[in-house]
Amino acid sequence: MLGARGGWRALRRCPSSIVSSSSFSSSFSSFSSSSSLPREQRAPAARLRVRQALGAREAAGEVQVQGWVRSIRSQKEVLFLHINDGSSLESLQVVADPSMESRDLTFGSAVEVRGKLVKSPHKMQNMELKAESIRVVGPCDTLSFPLKAKERHPLEYVRQFPHLRCRSNALGALLRIRSEATAAIHSFFQDHGYVHIHTPIITSNDCEGAGELFQIETSNETQKSAEKNHFFNVPAFLTVSGQLHLEVMAGAFTHVFTFGPTFRAENSQSRRHLAEFYMVEAELSFTESLQDIMQVMEDLFKTATSTVFSRCPRDVELFHKYVAPAQKGRLEQMLKNKFVTISYNEAVEILKQASQTFAFKPEWGCDLQTEHEKYLVQHCGEVPVFVINYPYDLKPFYMRDNEDGPQRTVAAVDLLVPGIGELCGGSLREERLPFLQSRLQRYLDLRKFGSVPHGGFGMGFERYLQYILGVDNIKDVIPFPRFPHSCLL
Amino acid sequence: MLGARGGWRALRRCPSSIVSSSSFSSSFSSFSSSSSLPREQRAPAARLRVRQALGAREAAGEVQVQGWVRSIRSQKEVLFLHINDGSSLESLQVVADPSMESRDLTFGSAVEVRGKLVKSPHKMQNMELKAESIRVVGPCDTLSFPLKAKERHPLEYVRQFPHLRCRSNALGALLRIRSEATAAIHSFFQDHGYVHIHTPIITSNDCEGAGELFQIETSNETQKSAEKNHFFNVPAFLTVSGQLHLEVMAGAFTHVFTFGPTFRAENSQSRRHLAEFYMVEAELSFTESLQDIMQVMEDLFKTATSTVFSRCPRDVELFHKYVAPAQKGRLEQMLKNKFVTISYNEAVEILKQASQTFAFKPEWGCDLQTEHEKYLVQHCGEVPVFVINYPYDLKPFYMRDNEDGPQRTVAAVDLLVPGIGELCGGSLREERLPFLQSRLQRYLDLRKFGSVPHGGFGMGFERYLQYILGVDNIKDVIPFPRFPHSCLL
Repeated sequence: MLGARGGWRALRRCPSSIVSSSSFSSSFSSFSSSSSLPREQRAPAARLRVRQALGAREAAGEVQVQGWVRSIRSQKEVLFLHINDGSSLESLQVVADPSMESRDLTFGSAVEVRGKLVKSPHKMQNMELKAESIRVVGPCDTLSFPLKAKERHPLEYVRQFPHLRCRSNALGALLRIRSEATAAIHSFFQDHGYVHIHTPIITSNDCEGAGELFQIETSNETQKSAEKNHFFNVPAFLTVSGQLHLEVMAGAFTHVFTFGPTFRAENSQSRRHLAEFYMVEAELSFTESLQDIMQVMEDLFKTATSTVFSRCPRDVELFHKYVAPAQKGRLEQMLKNKFVTISYNEAVEILKQASQTFAFKPEWGCDLQTEHEKYLVQHCGEVPVFVINYPYDLKPFYMRDNEDGPQRTVAAVDLLVPGIGELCGGSLREERLPFLQSRLQRYLDLRKFGSVPHGGFGMGFERYLQYILGVDNIKDVIPFPRFPHSCLL
Repeated sequence: MLGARGGWRALRRCPSSIVSSSSFSSSFSSFSSSSSLPREQRAPAARLRVRQALGAREAAGEVQVQGWVRSIRSQKEVLFLHINDGSSLESLQVVADPSMESRDLTFGSAVEVRGKLVKSPHKMQNMELKAESIRVVGPCDTLSFPLKAKERHPLEYVRQFPHLRCRSNALGALLRIRSEATAAIHSFFQDHGYVHIHTPIITSNDCEGAGELFQIETSNETQKSAEKNHFFNVPAFLTVSGQLHLEVMAGAFTHVFTFGPTFRAENSQSRRHLAEFYMVEAELSFTESLQDIMQVMEDLFKTATSTVFSRCPRDVELFHKYVAPAQKGRLEQMLKNKFVTISYNEAVEILKQASQTFAFKPEWGCDLQTEHEKYLVQHCGEVPVFVINYPYDLKPFYMRDNEDGPQRTVAAVDLLVPGIGELCGGSLREERLPFLQSRLQRYLDLRKFGSVPHGGFGMGFERYLQYILGVDNIKDVIPFPRFPHSCLL
């Protein structure tokens, strides 16, 4: 079987050979299935992805590999190529006769190679391809191509080329990891019985009450001229959170999640903010305490991270080796231990007793600043830290009053992680009608018809990727970053 | 094992009992794992979802079920309740002592029931819950609650209550199916080695050249007043397609897909259009013919549909029984047979020879109208029909010239399905630099550095759901519909 979730349909010309999938096997098991196919079906050459070729267990004749040339080395007797098709970080070595060399066969060109897949005599690789023919499908002008052979381009450099940076090793690895992390997050929730909800992008609400929204209008000039005549009759904005919509759904399904784009019109050029970013949000009904929510956050984080690490070890290794060398050990430690929990009260005490001088003096009732978060994480041993039970006045109206004093604290939680700061934020929601009496009508309706204790959280997906990979700038963990003054492509 | 992808962690208080997942087993296998847990871990009562309780193989003591009351029937000797928690269409029957009745225990109220799960004496259900206690967690004012016990509310009626309609059987089933279909589509692509890409929502491009876009600006008044001083320096819009961004990525990964929201500012009140809708898009490198693309479309459609049918049979049955009775047989037929393919030329000939009179006279070079699409699908036997090779002048600049005459036809394909019309659209992209010479610089760049023949397609996700379920109005297959004059919640 060309098994595994990575078990792609190898043979385009043999649509009958659809491979079955079974989750979480991380490597291709063998190439034998195609050789067991009848001869007529195998000719012409079976199309193989590079990852499949590299993982094949047996030699195979008449295969075809397509991809881009990553290196080319011409010797007297033999021509060596490395072909990469984005299916893995590693490239496939092609061994060819020097007569197959041509002017168009350069670094970056797209090629189709046919030949025999054989065991490689080299220790570093399992299989190699003995070329019988090489066809240059698309040449590449190496002079003007911004990526150069054998160079390790810094992330800042490739960021200038939004349409070509995915051809670099680092961004290639990053985007494969992002894809696997996305799948792992979906699987986590599905395996735990959550219903996935597409919460709306366009909304007339403003969840956080923050002022920094994008407003949308039709670009049609005639419609625009009819001032105040909005497309939706009301002013409409890009969503800052799916929480309110998830709360609606948690009143019917008990466990729901969403994973989609959210937006902030903040004029920030920081390495931690984007105008468009992805958020994972979950909402749970019949919660009994903040622990319910924190347990899901911790499980989600650990399950997704272990899955990513086991499914793309080589891609992750690139970051842990070259981008953030200390990250690997820290994360393995973190996966083994329970996250630390401290209350906001304790946090303020820790900060007050710190020998360090802060720009913002720590004071009960004030928000934790980045310098405070950093200190707390450090104080707890550079591990993820839950801070719980924030002052009532610091948090939005929908968070649940802890009743530890008149409007003193609410059941809110932030998850702080080393190097990033806040990764997740969540709370129990106020389900008791009297506590919400003066609020939005629809929000109240949800409390009228079978209201239940519930809570939820959101996790910034880019920050998650930054953290597990040790990537400093958020612009490097999203395919097409949007931030003030920049909307390339 | 509480196995299966639907094998949720049953016991919230036993975080050690994380259940492993294996795909595509559609039912809960047993309830035995929890009873094999040590006694200390089991007390207090194990929390069970309704779906788990209904599928349990063995009786169990001390369980706890939470949900909303769907029916209540009081007899002299016994009180019957039906509890639904959104984990399945079916509710769990609770058998209680009449003394447990209370004023707050009404249709729609949220309850927590503790008791023993036992084999039901009734044929129609496997298990039932013998209540030891019933706690009303959230009462429901049945007079003002717009849903009524034992009534089958029409989709048009519940559409008026965007925040409560998910509590109806039909919308509950629909949203569970939507969630499963989303997962099935992700799995399909992952199993075939595609990299998932989050293509941007905000873009400075306009893929289709269509004029009906939403433009975005910051809502911040001071920033607004600096006219022409855009947040991104350039005018920015909500995406109408991720194709161009996928093409970038197909130049590095060969197989990529995206599945996200897209937008049209069309002032249309039709039952087929929304201002915000979801699209599945894929792009494949090293394509050799339009057949490559069509094969993926057909496989995607069939695999996703079979998966949904097998994973939520009861939810699907609700639609095929009450909403669109003829749909089931047609779809089963469709899953068995190969989709029909006709060329645009043939389509025009078929239309010209039709006895039917059309409002738009069929003519080579004109777009196919809805009436034409309908006739073609009918002519082919009410099955999905690929129409290929459209006139050059009808299609966007990036589609590949078939060279069957000077700019005569392009390698474009539309997939038409009964009752819906166009479900997918795709094409081979023009990879040859000279054919694109006068176009966008970045688009040209992609052809300069290892250009490859490629192609792709998009599928409207809401139309897909409409088709497989026979739902007439697109507003009923999305959680929060957005259309002209309406942006509720």
